[in-house]
Amino acid sequence: MQIKLDRDNGRALYMQIVDALRHKIDTGQLPPYTRLPSSRQLAQELNVNRITIVNAYAELEAEGLIKSHVGRGTFVAEVPTLLPGEKQATPWRLPIEALPRHDWSPNLMMREMMRLARHPEVISFAGGMAASDFLPVVEFRQALNEVLRRDGAEALQYGDSIGYYPLRQTIAQYLNQQNIPVKVDDILITGGCQQAMDLVLRILRREGDTVLVENPSYLGLLDIITSHHMTPIGVPIDEYGVQVDKLEALILRYRPQLLYVVPTFQNPTGTTMSSARRQALLAVAHKYNLPLLEDNIYHELYFNTPPPPALIGLDESPSNLVFHASSYSKMLIPGLRLGYLITPPSLQERVIGLKQAADIASSSLNQRALNVYLQTGRLEPHLEKIRAAYKERCEVMLEAAERYFPKTACWQIPTGGLYLWVHMDPDGPRATDLYLKALNYGVAFAIGSVFFAHNPSLHTMRLNYAACTPAEIEEGIRRLGKAWHELLVQPSKQLDLGGQRTVPIL
Amino acid sequence: MQIKLDRDNGRALYMQIVDALRHKIDTGQLPPYTRLPSSRQLAQELNVNRITIVNAYAELEAEGLIKSHVGRGTFVAEVPTLLPGEKQATPWRLPIEALPRHDWSPNLMMREMMRLARHPEVISFAGGMAASDFLPVVEFRQALNEVLRRDGAEALQYGDSIGYYPLRQTIAQYLNQQNIPVKVDDILITGGCQQAMDLVLRILRREGDTVLVENPSYLGLLDIITSHHMTPIGVPIDEYGVQVDKLEALILRYRPQLLYVVPTFQNPTGTTMSSARRQALLAVAHKYNLPLLEDNIYHELYFNTPPPPALIGLDESPSNLVFHASSYSKMLIPGLRLGYLITPPSLQERVIGLKQAADIASSSLNQRALNVYLQTGRLEPHLEKIRAAYKERCEVMLEAAERYFPKTACWQIPTGGLYLWVHMDPDGPRATDLYLKALNYGVAFAIGSVFFAHNPSLHTMRLNYAACTPAEIEEGIRRLGKAWHELLVQPSKQLDLGGQRTVPIL
Repeated sequence: MQIKLDRDNGRALYMQIVDALRHKIDTGQLPPYTRLPSSRQLAQELNVNRITIVNAYAELEAEGLIKSHVGRGTFVAEVPTLLPGEKQATPWRLPIEALPRHDWSPNLMMREMMRLARHPEVISFAGGMAASDFLPVVEFRQALNEVLRRDGAEALQYGDSIGYYPLRQTIAQYLNQQNIPVKVDDILITGGCQQAMDLVLRILRREGDTVLVENPSYLGLLDIITSHHMTPIGVPIDEYGVQVDKLEALILRYRPQLLYVVPTFQNPTGTTMSSARRQALLAVAHKYNLPLLEDNIYHELYFNTPPPPALIGLDESPSNLVFHASSYSKMLIPGLRLGYLITPPSLQERVIGLKQAADIASSSLNQRALNVYLQTGRLEPHLEKIRAAYKERCEVMLEAAERYFPKTACWQIPTGGLYLWVHMDPDGPRATDLYLKALNYGVAFAIGSVFFAHNPSLHTMRLNYAACTPAEIEEGIRRLGKAWHELLVQPSKQLDLGGQRTVPIL
Repeated sequence: MQIKLDRDNGRALYMQIVDALRHKIDTGQLPPYTRLPSSRQLAQELNVNRITIVNAYAELEAEGLIKSHVGRGTFVAEVPTLLPGEKQATPWRLPIEALPRHDWSPNLMMREMMRLARHPEVISFAGGMAASDFLPVVEFRQALNEVLRRDGAEALQYGDSIGYYPLRQTIAQYLNQQNIPVKVDDILITGGCQQAMDLVLRILRREGDTVLVENPSYLGLLDIITSHHMTPIGVPIDEYGVQVDKLEALILRYRPQLLYVVPTFQNPTGTTMSSARRQALLAVAHKYNLPLLEDNIYHELYFNTPPPPALIGLDESPSNLVFHASSYSKMLIPGLRLGYLITPPSLQERVIGLKQAADIASSSLNQRALNVYLQTGRLEPHLEKIRAAYKERCEVMLEAAERYFPKTACWQIPTGGLYLWVHMDPDGPRATDLYLKALNYGVAFAIGSVFFAHNPSLHTMRLNYAACTPAEIEEGIRRLGKAWHELLVQPSKQLDLGGQRTVPIL
């Protein structure tokens, strides 16, 4: 029996001894009650300092593997046994049946909205998806066929975790054109924007941490935060985006790991941060060394003029606090599940490692086909088409809302993106009441309160104008208006029961 | 100014009051030094018990948002400020630059092996992939075209997080044929087997927890464990798989959250657990309520006779301790990134929620095309073809190894899977030395030590016989043998320097 020590392998010698002895004990080579050599004796044999052995024995004793008895020596410990009756409730772990069932409302609500959005009888303004009628089916089929003809089996093999090099080149060129100074190796291909953001939270998370988000914010990000046992803290927003003057107090109070923002055509409110606000936000981030996660997924969906530059392009400081995530799900094809992430240089290796642990790599086939599609210059004409179409659909919705909604409703006019954010009369019925009524009339929307980290506004809703045809929008808003007016005349049961109390304070 | 209380919404009243006051403070509606009403006064106004207000104020004070002064009343606290000099090292969070760079060896080693495996000059036995020459390029292209013709834009939209229903039906049928009693809704589609397993660890993890794995085990699972800040503990294996008689002591000692096993054609050793061992393993798992994660990815890659049934099919107890993960990466197409996970019923909702948080859903297009491929009965002929080919390649490798390797080398003859696990003379050069020498001769393999959770065997290597042609195998093993013999004559520098010490003990 031997212990091999390797002085070059970087692991402390005493831990190498711990490893070796633990192995011998676990495999039964050293059965319980075996007496170990004294530290002096073993130190001589292994030609190490005695303190090395003392440390090793201390570690093994702390792990419960050995026991020392003063004056008698050191022995392998007996194997612990189950206490009588311990089987029923193994104390170190809840039995699987007893683990809490999952019931985060954001997560379930998101699934419910995606489900409803596909129900054939319902006109749904609830989903977060772009229109199906503009998906480039024929062009993408051509791209797939070209890739499989050109690359053959290689297109079906594993690819690098960081992503397909030519696609990363194409993305780097696109970002450079927008004055975002990234190199090819700065870009990690991800399973949509969602995975990009999940990877960022995985890097920065420590349990119990807080993350600042716009209040309201993207449901899927709230979902990621919750899934990592972290707490979202909302930052108030106004028509120019995050209220930076409120931010410092929140940073000092909650000491967050990260601030997540959707600076352009925000989900759910449609708000775009002004350039001045963006600069102010970066200044505060630098003051406190606070990392920013910028979700730029709606950037290309403007109606008339391009929005202000992305935060990552504005950030001239070398400290590199900005994570930048985006994807092709909103501007091109959701079902590809392809997005990308730019990470501050000091964390790039780690984020690639986490991508690999999470799912090895994204689909080679989809990455190659997307690159062929982008390289043949098809994205820009596609974007021009959908920008015009979404603008028209937005106008149809605004006009119908003027006509059919109660006069107490109000909204901010979108300049791009997918969503109209509607405020209901705060003294009237809630969005949840309207939601139930509206479903009876075959129309669905996203209840606004689910987008809030806390202090939800109960009289808000999000309407996706991009995913339905103009005729559906007209009909859907008519139905919604009808349900709404009816609710104003006959308030729902819940209100009748006085489930809500409103009391003045101060 | 108002506080709205909702007695029906499930959140404790005092926390609703905390939420409302926190919001007013954070948004500046209640500026610093504002005096709050007394608990008695506010209790009357809100028509709640006074203890509710006392609890709410206590919570707010604990958060540092308000301060009470005996005899003077309760006030909104001042906003905390940065201490002088605090900027440099914000105390609650390391600046991004100071976060440790990622340097897990398993993760980097895996990427290195995947990179080498694609280098055109090197004959690589290092990778974990199946052969490229059998990838069904033409058939899969047909399936893709059929899907896009048939489903159009729907194939490019978002799909359900749980996965495409018809594909889940197909998988359920396949599993039912193997006497695994699952229903369609038990199956979650994932981004390969890797994501399936990552989701299981995400559900069960608590930081600092331990996970039992076979020692050695799959590198990617060690990587997942490390990425969740958990510790892998190795269970010794022999030619029949996990040594169940060693297991109980390890369970009692380390109180693990999970045991991960690859029962069939294990990675890296190629071992298949006997039926008796499988039964014994299930018995121990039930005794301790220990969840098992079964990785069944190599199941179909047998040479002559099908392996014993999967653990999930053998488990007749209703407690449902077995997670079952598999994928199409090894038996069909790696670049699709499609796998599946079966979860104990009580955790199904949660695992779907986590999949949604991780990346919304897997690619609709790939799922639909895979289902068309499977439904047209193409998998079975494909499997027959690769089973015969891999068997032949394995025989070529074994014969070449007999011819070219030193007589001190030994191995277990595979009956399926992708890997040959080779033991080198424990008193000779290490696998790392051979690896460097072999690269000079244009041949690569996986160094065995990286697969160990701890106590690595430094004289082992894993050879993938499936991914190279018979001619490449013959040539690669010849080169490897040449490098090896040369090393035996001229030991590498590292050995000359006495980097390794071998000392007898006990």
